[in-house]
Amino acid sequence: MSSARQIGVTELALRDAHQSLMATRMALEDMVDACPDIDAAGYWSVECWGGATFDACIRFLNEDPWERLRTFRRLLPNSRLQMLLRGQNLLGYRHYGDDVVDHFVEKAAENGMDVFRVFDALNDPRNLERAMAAVKKSGKHAQGTVCYTTSPLHTVEGYVQLANQLKDMGADSIALKDMAALLKPQPAYDIVKAIKDETGLQVNVHCHSTTGVTLVSLMKAIEGGADVVDTAISSMSLGPGHNPTESLQEMLEGTGYVADLDKMLLGRIKEHFAAVKPRYSQFMSSFNVETDIFDSQIPGGMISNMESQLKQQGAGDKLKEVMEEVPRVRADAGFPPLVTPSSQIVGTQAVFNVLMGRYQVLTAEFADLMLGYYGLTLGEMNPDVVAKAKEQTGKEPITVRPADLIPPEWDELRDDAAKLEGFDGSDEDVLTHAMFPKVAPKFFKERPQGPKNVGRDPAELEAEKLAAAGDTGSGPVRMPISYTITIDGKEHSVAVKPA
Amino acid sequence: MSSARQIGVTELALRDAHQSLMATRMALEDMVDACPDIDAAGYWSVECWGGATFDACIRFLNEDPWERLRTFRRLLPNSRLQMLLRGQNLLGYRHYGDDVVDHFVEKAAENGMDVFRVFDALNDPRNLERAMAAVKKSGKHAQGTVCYTTSPLHTVEGYVQLANQLKDMGADSIALKDMAALLKPQPAYDIVKAIKDETGLQVNVHCHSTTGVTLVSLMKAIEGGADVVDTAISSMSLGPGHNPTESLQEMLEGTGYVADLDKMLLGRIKEHFAAVKPRYSQFMSSFNVETDIFDSQIPGGMISNMESQLKQQGAGDKLKEVMEEVPRVRADAGFPPLVTPSSQIVGTQAVFNVLMGRYQVLTAEFADLMLGYYGLTLGEMNPDVVAKAKEQTGKEPITVRPADLIPPEWDELRDDAAKLEGFDGSDEDVLTHAMFPKVAPKFFKERPQGPKNVGRDPAELEAEKLAAAGDTGSGPVRMPISYTITIDGKEHSVAVKPA
Repeated sequence: MSSARQIGVTELALRDAHQSLMATRMALEDMVDACPDIDAAGYWSVECWGGATFDACIRFLNEDPWERLRTFRRLLPNSRLQMLLRGQNLLGYRHYGDDVVDHFVEKAAENGMDVFRVFDALNDPRNLERAMAAVKKSGKHAQGTVCYTTSPLHTVEGYVQLANQLKDMGADSIALKDMAALLKPQPAYDIVKAIKDETGLQVNVHCHSTTGVTLVSLMKAIEGGADVVDTAISSMSLGPGHNPTESLQEMLEGTGYVADLDKMLLGRIKEHFAAVKPRYSQFMSSFNVETDIFDSQIPGGMISNMESQLKQQGAGDKLKEVMEEVPRVRADAGFPPLVTPSSQIVGTQAVFNVLMGRYQVLTAEFADLMLGYYGLTLGEMNPDVVAKAKEQTGKEPITVRPADLIPPEWDELRDDAAKLEGFDGSDEDVLTHAMFPKVAPKFFKERPQGPKNVGRDPAELEAEKLAAAGDTGSGPVRMPISYTITIDGKEHSVAVKPA
Repeated sequence: MSSARQIGVTELALRDAHQSLMATRMALEDMVDACPDIDAAGYWSVECWGGATFDACIRFLNEDPWERLRTFRRLLPNSRLQMLLRGQNLLGYRHYGDDVVDHFVEKAAENGMDVFRVFDALNDPRNLERAMAAVKKSGKHAQGTVCYTTSPLHTVEGYVQLANQLKDMGADSIALKDMAALLKPQPAYDIVKAIKDETGLQVNVHCHSTTGVTLVSLMKAIEGGADVVDTAISSMSLGPGHNPTESLQEMLEGTGYVADLDKMLLGRIKEHFAAVKPRYSQFMSSFNVETDIFDSQIPGGMISNMESQLKQQGAGDKLKEVMEEVPRVRADAGFPPLVTPSSQIVGTQAVFNVLMGRYQVLTAEFADLMLGYYGLTLGEMNPDVVAKAKEQTGKEPITVRPADLIPPEWDELRDDAAKLEGFDGSDEDVLTHAMFPKVAPKFFKERPQGPKNVGRDPAELEAEKLAAAGDTGSGPVRMPISYTITIDGKEHSVAVKPA
């Protein structure tokens, strides 16, 4: 086995795994005890920040995301820390000025980030340029990302072209990102091999496990030349999450590839999260495996979003119609990959189409998408829908890089943040407010109260459930209940409550 | 794709899937509605009988297993029905006389069985001979089985040798059976390729999904030449069960192999079982994925068995010790595969060793195993333990085929059955009694009451849970409770019960 090719592994337990399995709710304190083992297990990198974690920290957990990052840096001194960055969107939901991008990357690097996986939902390379350049300037690892999707227009050649553009930006590696578990084994092999052959760069592969096929895809990607693959420790794996780290390692035995992780430490990391996980059961779905996504292209998280939107409108029965509408809307928008924020934009427009008639009302975001304000998609936009977007918004379509229209905004963002109660004066706080202007003010104010762990002891939850059932008359006595009682041989009909 | 090689699929939903996921409890009535879709979906075969289903039918469901088989035959007129048969053990836990084997196979064929997957827990070909011959005589498909396990003695060559012996018995196909999800991709490729090259027979591959790696193993098995693979519809898949049927089909896209199943029908089959499954939640574990098995060799079901044995002895804390003892006991017994009944025999002896000192007390079954009464294992038995087995039982070791020592027993078995209340005079009833002499008498007596579906509506279960909580004082008032109540300004201490 001495000649076996080493395959690196990126552990996802600290970021994407709990984002995918338990709505990003895991508190830092439920992760710290696993860090020494993670740090020593032999991973290529540890993904621990970015994606929705920043948002969840300030929205739900009263945790400072920058403090979380610094804590990981301290607890994982020997590991490459990795984050997911939405290109010009950073961790927010709009395009930011280039100066904000620069500040964000600089601060993330300063606080301990090593590997920046930079992606754009539309695979528009212009939306990645500035962030990639900022990472290069910081001296950190710039990982350019190819988002995988399928359409009549997406080809191996197209993905290779994007990878080449990322290489030209100075990418230290290329990530093939399969957020919806659409990547089948043969395309995995073909794309990875082509990117590897063409760019000569390190290739990382990220797959979710939703459709059940992607551990096979990782095997084929490795055969095609992938250097690093993303997995999550088994107790934090599968369903809408990722393939199990231990299974990846075991799978390779005898194949000529080896993932040299410490099995004993993996066992301990597994046990740690197996013990923590039940505390988050109220955020978990019982999702198993779902291959319908191959046809509908709709990731699991998006379905539950659309379902709740429909229910709010009293149209819960229209889900199937909406799911059939999504691919049509996606085609009209030029076949964007469906990933934050394009998944939300396309999904919500599909809901509008079904509820109010096709394109009778466009959401502001969908109109912007059709007018080029999110960047270019691979396919042509449907000109009729573009016309409607113009008409409804009074905006003109653009073809320039969207951020070219955004003037420098750092000073204004600093001034805005400075007005907030609890603002600590740091650039990090300016960035927190810039990312989530609606959530940050409350967070700054309440930050002194310290982190709120929303995980709950399962026994405690069960007891509450019983208590709640009491309120409906079938649980413990919590309100007056009518009983027939007999006192001194005489029947009384009375209301009773606990003494 | 016209030149793609067709891969057959055996659907496991009706047998091994619910055996593995919900303790074999699924009632026939919860399967019948899916049968027309299963029959038309394009499977190579439908596994629907054998294993533990026969036992569960009469023990828990008051269902006649033969009637179940006839029902499947009627509802799946276009499908090959497939069963799992434990060689000379048939569906019971002892060796039967050859005449009983002949009768069983004849009756199973007569009632509608097409494909007999015949295996022996020890891979002792002598234990398969008679059953294989009986299947051939009945004109049905005889599938000889190689049970997969790992040990210092198990080699590709050894498996090929067994496959050749099965071919000599007239096997129509060879099954590679991986009941503990130990089969990794590379060995899957190597073994299948070697068996295929050597025997030229159809090769079927059966894997559980317990360790998370085996869909990759199926891919490699197919590349190695496998013709048919076993899967379970997605809503009845994963965990200690099997890989999802839909994922298998999707996985093959573009690979040069194709599983030509009807996706629309698969979707309907999935929905059917997704709706039925929650009714069996009380029998399901929350098991996800477990790679420890690669080291311990202990399948999941066996762990829970040993755990309950230990708890009964007040030694629940000794599980880890027992798990370390199992591989030692297995080595002393010559490295048998761990599958019914060898898994139970080895596991229980390991429990005895930990509780009472190593080999201080041998179970009758383990002593028989050591003395050759279950057949030959691949490795040599530990002579010290064999000596203890002789001493404890007063029996001599044997080297002949175990069933050679069993005289014809059909007439006696018929006489025994005839004495039972409710015996219907059929050979099928004789066989039912022969398989499970302790359970059949009660079943025959209660059979007229008809099937008992042990599935439960989840809402109903929840209500019962709440009610049960009431009995401990924290739920609704179900028995007199003392309260202090005030009537007309005067306090009374009274007992209260619901009006």
